[in-house]
Amino acid sequence: MRKILLTLAVMGAGLAAAPAFAQEADPAGAVSGGTAYILNTLLFLIGGFLVMWMAAGFAMLEAGLVRSKNVSMQCLKNIGLFSIAGIMFWLIGYSIAYPGFEGGFFGIADFPYAMQAVGEADTETGYSVASDWFFQMVFCATTASIVSGTLAERIKIWPFFIFTFCLTGFIYPVVVSWEWGAGWLDAMGFSDFAGSTLVHSTGGWAALAGALILGPRLGRYVDGKVVAFPGSSIPLATLGTFILWLGWFGFNGASQLAMGTIEDASDISRIFVNTNLAACAGVIAAIILTQILYKKIDITMALNGALAGLVSITAEPLTPSVPAALFIGAIGGIIVVLAVPLLDKLKIDDVVGAIPVHLLAGIWGTLIVPLTNADVPFVAQLTGVVATGVFVMITAGVIWSVLKMTLGLRPTPEEEIDGLDKVEVGVEAYPEFV
Amino acid sequence: MRKILLTLAVMGAGLAAAPAFAQEADPAGAVSGGTAYILNTLLFLIGGFLVMWMAAGFAMLEAGLVRSKNVSMQCLKNIGLFSIAGIMFWLIGYSIAYPGFEGGFFGIADFPYAMQAVGEADTETGYSVASDWFFQMVFCATTASIVSGTLAERIKIWPFFIFTFCLTGFIYPVVVSWEWGAGWLDAMGFSDFAGSTLVHSTGGWAALAGALILGPRLGRYVDGKVVAFPGSSIPLATLGTFILWLGWFGFNGASQLAMGTIEDASDISRIFVNTNLAACAGVIAAIILTQILYKKIDITMALNGALAGLVSITAEPLTPSVPAALFIGAIGGIIVVLAVPLLDKLKIDDVVGAIPVHLLAGIWGTLIVPLTNADVPFVAQLTGVVATGVFVMITAGVIWSVLKMTLGLRPTPEEEIDGLDKVEVGVEAYPEFV
Amino acid sequence: MRKILLTLAVMGAGLAAAPAFAQEADPAGAVSGGTAYILNTLLFLIGGFLVMWMAAGFAMLEAGLVRSKNVSMQCLKNIGLFSIAGIMFWLIGYSIAYPGFEGGFFGIADFPYAMQAVGEADTETGYSVASDWFFQMVFCATTASIVSGTLAERIKIWPFFIFTFCLTGFIYPVVVSWEWGAGWLDAMGFSDFAGSTLVHSTGGWAALAGALILGPRLGRYVDGKVVAFPGSSIPLATLGTFILWLGWFGFNGASQLAMGTIEDASDISRIFVNTNLAACAGVIAAIILTQILYKKIDITMALNGALAGLVSITAEPLTPSVPAALFIGAIGGIIVVLAVPLLDKLKIDDVVGAIPVHLLAGIWGTLIVPLTNADVPFVAQLTGVVATGVFVMITAGVIWSVLKMTLGLRPTPEEEIDGLDKVEVGVEAYPEFV
Repeated sequence: MRKILLTLAVMGAGLAAAPAFAQEADPAGAVSGGTAYILNTLLFLIGGFLVMWMAAGFAMLEAGLVRSKNVSMQCLKNIGLFSIAGIMFWLIGYSIAYPGFEGGFFGIADFPYAMQAVGEADTETGYSVASDWFFQMVFCATTASIVSGTLAERIKIWPFFIFTFCLTGFIYPVVVSWEWGAGWLDAMGFSDFAGSTLVHSTGGWAALAGALILGPRLGRYVDGKVVAFPGSSIPLATLGTFILWLGWFGFNGASQLAMGTIEDASDISRIFVNTNLAACAGVIAAIILTQILYKKIDITMALNGALAGLVSITAEPLTPSVPAALFIGAIGGIIVVLAVPLLDKLKIDDVVGAIPVHLLAGIWGTLIVPLTNADVPFVAQLTGVVATGVFVMITAGVIWSVLKMTLGLRPTPEEEIDGLDKVEVGVEAYPEFV
Repeated sequence: MRKILLTLAVMGAGLAAAPAFAQEADPAGAVSGGTAYILNTLLFLIGGFLVMWMAAGFAMLEAGLVRSKNVSMQCLKNIGLFSIAGIMFWLIGYSIAYPGFEGGFFGIADFPYAMQAVGEADTETGYSVASDWFFQMVFCATTASIVSGTLAERIKIWPFFIFTFCLTGFIYPVVVSWEWGAGWLDAMGFSDFAGSTLVHSTGGWAALAGALILGPRLGRYVDGKVVAFPGSSIPLATLGTFILWLGWFGFNGASQLAMGTIEDASDISRIFVNTNLAACAGVIAAIILTQILYKKIDITMALNGALAGLVSITAEPLTPSVPAALFIGAIGGIIVVLAVPLLDKLKIDDVVGAIPVHLLAGIWGTLIVPLTNADVPFVAQLTGVVATGVFVMITAGVIWSVLKMTLGLRPTPEEEIDGLDKVEVGVEAYPEFV
Repeated sequence: MRKILLTLAVMGAGLAAAPAFAQEADPAGAVSGGTAYILNTLLFLIGGFLVMWMAAGFAMLEAGLVRSKNVSMQCLKNIGLFSIAGIMFWLIGYSIAYPGFEGGFFGIADFPYAMQAVGEADTETGYSVASDWFFQMVFCATTASIVSGTLAERIKIWPFFIFTFCLTGFIYPVVVSWEWGAGWLDAMGFSDFAGSTLVHSTGGWAALAGALILGPRLGRYVDGKVVAFPGSSIPLATLGTFILWLGWFGFNGASQLAMGTIEDASDISRIFVNTNLAACAGVIAAIILTQILYKKIDITMALNGALAGLVSITAEPLTPSVPAALFIGAIGGIIVVLAVPLLDKLKIDDVVGAIPVHLLAGIWGTLIVPLTNADVPFVAQLTGVVATGVFVMITAGVIWSVLKMTLGLRPTPEEEIDGLDKVEVGVEAYPEFV
C-alpha cells in the first residue's frame, strides 16, 4: 500500500494502452459500451445487495430496542415485510413507479413476463433491467421497514402485513412515480437523489399515521409522565445501526445509477465520503448534545444520530462539500435528540425513534438541497415534502382506519402485557433468560 | 435517481464511444479480453466473500436455535469447520473435484505450488485460478456447515471435526467431480446450477446419516411425545437467516462463473431476482401454512421457509420466469413446514431443521429443473439425486460408524444434560444470564 | 457451474474481440485507461465498505467479551471512535499521512475543499481521490478500534474519545507517512503491505501504553491469582470475529490499490486465498494448542487465533506460497495462546486479547516478510517495528498521562463495580436479563 509509488505503477500498467489519458478531452469515451453496460449493472447488483442487507439492520435495531417479550414479533415482521415487498413490487409496484416503461414492455400485466425479454430491452437502457428492478425493490422494502419499528409492541401481525401489502404495492410506488418515474414533481424541479423524502419520509409518514391511529403502548404515558421501556439488547441495536450504515453506501452510492464512466465512478466515491461523514457528524452531534442535556451520553441517541445523519444526506449526497455534508448530518443528529422527547410530550409513541430519524431528518435533508445544489428550487422541495406528507397521511390513514374497524389493530390488553411473542408468534425470543 | 432521465444520460455518456451500441449484432464483443478477465475474476471474489459470510450465517442461525448451554459449542464448530474446509479443499479437495485440470497443472501434488504459477494458467482460463479456488472453497465449507446444525447439542467436538475433515477433503469433492468436474453426471445431462444437490443435499445426506447413527438428544422423544427444546435466541436465528439470504446472491449469482459479457451480466441480474423472490415465496408460504395449521405464525418456520426457498431455486436460478421462481420457492417453504414434524415422528432429531431445508428442498429444486429448462432430462436429475444420496449415505455412514466405534460420538448423559459448553469448550456462552 | 465447459464458453464469448488473447505479450494493455480508472476506484469502494464493516466486528467482539454491565459502553465507544476517526482523518490525518500530495492540491488547509476539484486530480492518479480517501480512512478507524477492547470496563468515555481524537488525527497518520506516505521507512526498504505494523501494531502499542497507565480492572489480580471475568456473550464475539474475517478481504485485497490490469486482479485473488488460509491456520493452531494445554478447546482462543492469523499475513499477503501463508498464520495463533496468560502474569489487563492479536502477531507478520519477499531487508522490518513502537509508546504514553492528570482516566471504584453502563451511558445493555 505504498500509495505514491504504486500510483505511478498503476498509471504505467493500467494506462499503457492510453498514454495520453490524462490529457484526453473525453477520457470517459475510452470505456466501451459493453463494459459500461456491465459496470452499470454491477453497480445495481452491489448496491442492491447492500440495501437488501439493511433489512437485517432494521430487524436487529428493532429487536434490540423492544422489550424481550416482543422480540420474536419484530423479527417476524421484518422478514415478512421484506418478502411481501419483494412480491408486491414485482406484481404491481414497479409498474406504477415507472410508468414511462409501460408504453414499451413494462406494465402491470406485462411485467411478470418481461423478465424473459431481456436482450433487446437491456441494450436499450444501458444496463440490465432485472438489476435495476432488484435495486428499486430493496428501496421499496426499506420504506416498509421504517413503519415496523414505530408500531412495535402493540400491533397484531396480520393487520401489519396487510398494511405492508398496500404500502409496497401502492402508496410507495405512487410517490416514487411522481419523481423518479419522471412525474409531476420531477417536472417541477424537485430533487431527491436517493430518497430522503420518497423512501424515508414516506415510511415515516406511514408510521406516524399508524402511531396516531394505533395509540401508545399500555402504561407508556401515565399521569402526564413518560414511563421508560428500555430496549432488551443494546448490542443488537448497535449491530443494526452498523448494518444500516454499511447498507447506506449502496443506498446512496448506487443511486448514481451508472458506473460506466470516470465521472460516475468519481461521483460515487464522493457520495461514499459525504454519506459516511454525515453519519459521523450525526453521531458526534447526538453525543455532545445528550452530554450537555443529560450529563450522560445516551447510546440510543448516538445510534439514531448516525441514522439521522444518513437520512439527512440522502436527498443530496453528491453536491455538498465535506463541510456542508458534516453540517447537514449534524443537524440531523440534533433533530433526533430534540424530537424524541417532543414526540413523547405529544404522546406519540414511536418505539425506536423512526419518526425523528426517517420523517423529520428526511424533511430536513430534502429542504436543504438547494443550499448545495443551485439547480434545485426550494419551492419544489417544499412542494415535494408537503405533497408526500398529505398523500401518505391520507392513504395510510385510510388503510389503518379500515384495518382498525375490520380486523382490529391491537391485541387485547392482557395479550399486550404478556407480550406479542406468546400470542401472535408462539415462539419466545429468549425462553431461558427472562 | 431520476431513472428515466438518467438512463438517457447513461446512454449519452457511457455509450459515447459506441453510439450504435443498441443496434450492434454482437455488443458483447465490445468488452476487451483483459477487461473480461478482470470482471470474471471480480465476480468470483465478490461471490466468494458473500458465500464466506454464510459461514457466519450458519453460526448465528445455529447459535440461536440451540439451548444456551450448547451455544459456545455451536460457535466453535462453525469457526472450526470453516477452517478445516479451507485447508482440506486446498490440500486435496479441489484436485479431486476438478480432475480436468490434472493433466495441465493441477493435481494433488501440484496444487500447493500451482498458486505461484499464475500468469500463464490464468490467461488460458479467462479468470484468475486463485479467485476460482476461493469461490469453490466457500461452497465446500457451506456443505460442512449444514451438518453442524442437525447434530447439535449431543456430539463431541473432535469426532465432528474429523468427520468435517473427511467431508470437505473427500465426500464433497467426489460428488462435485461428477458434475462440475465434467464427470459422468454431467455427461448424462444432469444440471445443478449452484448446488441444490451437490452442496445442499450432500450436506443434508451427511447430516441425516449422522442423525441416524448419533440418535436423538436425551429427553427429546418421551413416551411417544415430542418434547420441544426452544432455541435460546430468536434474533440471532433471524440474523443468521438474513446473512444466509444475503450470501445467497453470491452463491447463485456468481455461479454464472463469468461477468465479462452483457449476457452474463444480464443473466446474473435475473438470477438475483429469481433467488430473492424464491426466498420471499418460501417465507410467505411458511407464514400462511403455519397460520392455517397452528393458528399462529411460527417464526422458525418463516426463517427456514426463506432458506428452503433459496435451496429450491439453487439448482436452476436462471431459466425460471418469475412466477415459476415463486412457485419453486413456495413449495420449498411448504416442504419445510410439513417435513419438520414428520422427522420428529420418525424420531430423527434435526435440531435446526437442516434436513428439510437442505436435503428435501434440495431434492425438490433439482427435480423441478426440467420444468423451466427443457434441455435437462428428468432422468438425469433423478439419477443425480439418487446417486448423491447413495454415495453420501454410504460414505458418511461408514465414517460416522467408525468414529462411533473408536472415539465415540456422544458425551456421557450427565455431560449432555449439563451442556456441551462446560465439558467440551470450557467457556459458557452467557455466563451471567442463565 | 459446470466449470470446464463454461470456461470454454467464457473464452468464446468474452474473448471474442481478442481471439489471440492468451498469446498476447501484454494482455493488460487491452484494458482501456477509462476502464482501469473505474475498476481501480471500484476496488477502493468495495474494499472500503468491507473495512468499514470491521467497525461492527470490533463492536460485537468487544460487546461479547466484556461483562454485561459494560456492554453499552463498548458499543458507544465503537460507534463514537468510528465517527471521530472519520472526521479527524478528513480534517488533518490524510494530509499528514500523505504529504506527497501537499505540493499539489492536498494539505491541511486545502483538503476540505479538494473534494470538489475532482476531475483533473483524479485523472492524474488513475483512480478517484475520494475513493482512496475513503479506503484510507477506514484503516485509520481500525487502528482506533484496537485500543477500545484492551481498555474496556475501566476507562471513562471522554478521555477515551479525546485519545481517539489524537490517535486518528496525529499518531496514526504520522506512522503512515513514514511508509505509505513515501517517507523514511519506505526509503529504507521497509515493507508493510496492508498494515501489520502501521495499523495493527500502532493500535496495539497505543493499547499497551493505555493498559500500563490505566492499570488492571478491580479484582482482576488478587493475591497473585488471575480472576477470570468471562465475557457476556460468546455468539456476539463469534459474530464479531466472522465480521472481521470478512472485512479482511477488503483490508488486504484492496491494499493491492489497483484492479485495472490482469496482473492486479490475479494478485488480489491470491491475496484472498492467502488471507483466508492464514486465518484458518490460526484457528486450527489455537484449537490444537488449547486442547493440548488445557484438555479443552477454548473458543475465545480459536476466535483470537483467526484474528492473529489475519494480522500475521497482513504485512505480506501476496508473495507467500500457500504453505508459507499457513505457517505464518499458524504461528500467529500460537502467539495468542501463549501470550494471553503471559500478559496476565505481568498484570497487564487486556480485556479482549488485543495486544497479543494486533501487537504481537503484527510484529511477527512484519518480521517474517523477508522469508517470502527477497526484496525486503530484515533490518528495515526490524527498524520499522522498533520505530513504530518507540514513537507510539512515547506519544500515546504522554497523551494518556496528561489525560490521567487532568480529566482522570478511571471512574470511581464504586462506579467500576456497578458497571460503566449505568454511570457513563445511562442505558443498560440487557435491562431484563441480569
